[in-house]
Amino acid sequence: MTLPRRRFVEQAATLAALPFVDRWLGGGLGSGLPRDIDPLLDAAPLRADGAWVNAALARFDAIGRTASGINRVAYSEGDLAGRAFTLDLYRAAGLTPRIDAAGNIIARVAGSDPRLPAIVIGSHVDSVTDGGNYDGPVGTFGAIGAARALQAQGVRLRHPLDVVCWQNEEGGTIGSKLAIGAPVDLDGVARSGKTIREGITLTGGDPSRLAEAVRPRGSVACYLELHIEQGGNLDRSGTPIGVVLGIVGLKWFEVTIDGFANHAGATPMDQRQDAMLAAAKFTIAVNEAIRLEPGRQVATVGRVVALPNTRNVIAGQVQLTVDLRDLDAAKVARFAARFQQIGREIGAATNTTFTFREATSSEPAMADPRVMGWIEASAGALGLGTQRMPSGAGHDAQEMAHLCPMGMIFVPSVGGISHSPKEFSRPQDIANGVDVLLNTVMGADRALDA
Amino acid sequence: MTLPRRRFVEQAATLAALPFVDRWLGGGLGSGLPRDIDPLLDAAPLRADGAWVNAALARFDAIGRTASGINRVAYSEGDLAGRAFTLDLYRAAGLTPRIDAAGNIIARVAGSDPRLPAIVIGSHVDSVTDGGNYDGPVGTFGAIGAARALQAQGVRLRHPLDVVCWQNEEGGTIGSKLAIGAPVDLDGVARSGKTIREGITLTGGDPSRLAEAVRPRGSVACYLELHIEQGGNLDRSGTPIGVVLGIVGLKWFEVTIDGFANHAGATPMDQRQDAMLAAAKFTIAVNEAIRLEPGRQVATVGRVVALPNTRNVIAGQVQLTVDLRDLDAAKVARFAARFQQIGREIGAATNTTFTFREATSSEPAMADPRVMGWIEASAGALGLGTQRMPSGAGHDAQEMAHLCPMGMIFVPSVGGISHSPKEFSRPQDIANGVDVLLNTVMGADRALDA
Repeated sequence: MTLPRRRFVEQAATLAALPFVDRWLGGGLGSGLPRDIDPLLDAAPLRADGAWVNAALARFDAIGRTASGINRVAYSEGDLAGRAFTLDLYRAAGLTPRIDAAGNIIARVAGSDPRLPAIVIGSHVDSVTDGGNYDGPVGTFGAIGAARALQAQGVRLRHPLDVVCWQNEEGGTIGSKLAIGAPVDLDGVARSGKTIREGITLTGGDPSRLAEAVRPRGSVACYLELHIEQGGNLDRSGTPIGVVLGIVGLKWFEVTIDGFANHAGATPMDQRQDAMLAAAKFTIAVNEAIRLEPGRQVATVGRVVALPNTRNVIAGQVQLTVDLRDLDAAKVARFAARFQQIGREIGAATNTTFTFREATSSEPAMADPRVMGWIEASAGALGLGTQRMPSGAGHDAQEMAHLCPMGMIFVPSVGGISHSPKEFSRPQDIANGVDVLLNTVMGADRALDA
Repeated sequence: MTLPRRRFVEQAATLAALPFVDRWLGGGLGSGLPRDIDPLLDAAPLRADGAWVNAALARFDAIGRTASGINRVAYSEGDLAGRAFTLDLYRAAGLTPRIDAAGNIIARVAGSDPRLPAIVIGSHVDSVTDGGNYDGPVGTFGAIGAARALQAQGVRLRHPLDVVCWQNEEGGTIGSKLAIGAPVDLDGVARSGKTIREGITLTGGDPSRLAEAVRPRGSVACYLELHIEQGGNLDRSGTPIGVVLGIVGLKWFEVTIDGFANHAGATPMDQRQDAMLAAAKFTIAVNEAIRLEPGRQVATVGRVVALPNTRNVIAGQVQLTVDLRDLDAAKVARFAARFQQIGREIGAATNTTFTFREATSSEPAMADPRVMGWIEASAGALGLGTQRMPSGAGHDAQEMAHLCPMGMIFVPSVGGISHSPKEFSRPQDIANGVDVLLNTVMGADRALDA
């Protein structure tokens, strides 16, 4: 295998700035430009069988497929069929899967040192309504493919390796929340219409024994997750590997705007308390405010319900949602306050009343800088360019970050499309991602608890 | 009875500018300020029994009343109960109602000259969903009350007088459309869930004999309708009587905005095709455009449906409606073109596509200036101030305007509220309206076919 030398040198130069890389590489890199890159070239990266993973994804595409997209919403027939397929895939890879009390699928590969905590890798296979085949399965099958490659090449890690398929990621990272002992409303109703409690039973767990599914602090050395990027940054820049800086913090607001419903034909323009007009002004003001400041923060009005929602009646009430995210919790809090101020101003100007309810709030979950370094070093060794980026989407990794060092590897999604039947990642990009995951596991195994 | 002299003089001065008033008043008013106002004072106005009409309205309030408002949507149980009450009220007033083939209730009072065409007065008693007790019944009961007053005071008109209660006004002026022979989709489904065809049978008409319900051209001398004002102009200015200039022309557009649905967290702000943002910009632009030009034109975005309408997904599509009205058909056409241009501009700026469909279009229906003059003269004789105004709402009068000279008398609705359980008109205002209707009938009877 030949690495494109120029790219590698650039990569190594970046890595040299990170002290732990130097340690991992055995001091082969000094500060500044590397004098000697042989140590990295000597440690030739492992390769997984990308074709095997892609073949599994191709077969998986038929499961839950409907005219409007992939429908494997948690606990539905499609989801349960997808989990059965996944269990078979574990076995085909030589792994022995079990289902924990929370309904998560886990297969352990023993390490050489039974005293060490586990390296956990995985993702999910449930989908959104009318979703695609890549969000989740790429990381789950990729983790299975990485474990298979270790077995096939006779590589034994020092740490135990747990290959996990979390249940119900799309409905609120339920399986990983249960794994860290975070509160979950078992009576909450999932998109399939089943409660979480029913879903745990359906997936083979046991709602009465959830404590057994909780990972004790100290029992996990690190968590790694491969996933498609759900924005278009990698696809646009032609970069094969995204190194996740962290998963953004999020606030969801439900905003109720009260005006006064009246006749659309008979009420003069200057006598209206038009909740629709106020909602439109607010939607634009939120968009302008979030774009005014440099950075990667995002804010979205995605849902709107007007009352009476009739063409010849001025809207008396509009309810809308704001989704606000950034990697910086202080910035999220600042924009949240700004949006409420904007609502008050528009309310005063339009003779309407804005009421805010914070429906959800989550803190940013930062990736571990050492894990980011191992990902970058692995990609570098494989000759793959990288780009650091926040994850604007939520992932099971955000839960695991409460428990252990966490890192995520992104691969491009064409056009940045996700949660859509049009979601697509190229087989080569997926194979690259699995290779980077495999080598990152190797790097973590070497560096952690050393 | 004493008229406030100053107000009357002002009124008479205004009237003097209208040549037909001069004719009706027997030449008693010259040009400029009147030298002699005795002729008007001599012709003391008739009075109807406002208390009788208000008592009927008070009893009617219980019919179709639910926790959320008056529900007498056409052909529903509430509507049929309301019609039964109304038939009883005709009879209590000494009238003999019949139901024509279209389901309209009509009672004829013979005139002294059987060769003359009929003066038609009336309104409707059906309501919108969750509506009030005044929109429709005020004019229907007012017309019955006016006919009752003529009988009670032994006044015989020259013209026959038809007192009409039109069926299904709120669902598209169906009864009056059938009366003028305008096309009606008999298979269209009304808000009650019944088809128009079923509704005609339910109201006592006969869908197979609709031709018999059509009023031949020349058979109606004029049409007068008393109604609550559905804006707040009269209430705000403290004016007891509104003289309708005409019923505005209307265009209803259904606008579909296509963007691209994507992840609200992962899609950078500058990479979005956000249909919700485009819809907000359009809603504001329509409002600003319509307000920029002096006049009483109105435009309303009252209905919005977003897809997928989920808080964490950028809207891929938004459908919204525009309701555009003015008394000037050319102005309506000009704004319709302007709104489509605005859609194209916003589409280009936001990377979305706007598609317009004209769902409904109706021409303005102008009131007859002579009828307006009789209304103003009647109000003046009663000592009631008047204000000319367009009707932004549609009425059966807009259909009858195709057939004969038309006029409408408005009375204040408190706060300009209509189509709402909060709809309310003061008993005195209603009594004033019935008196003006009665005297306008008298004026028309004297002046028409003379």
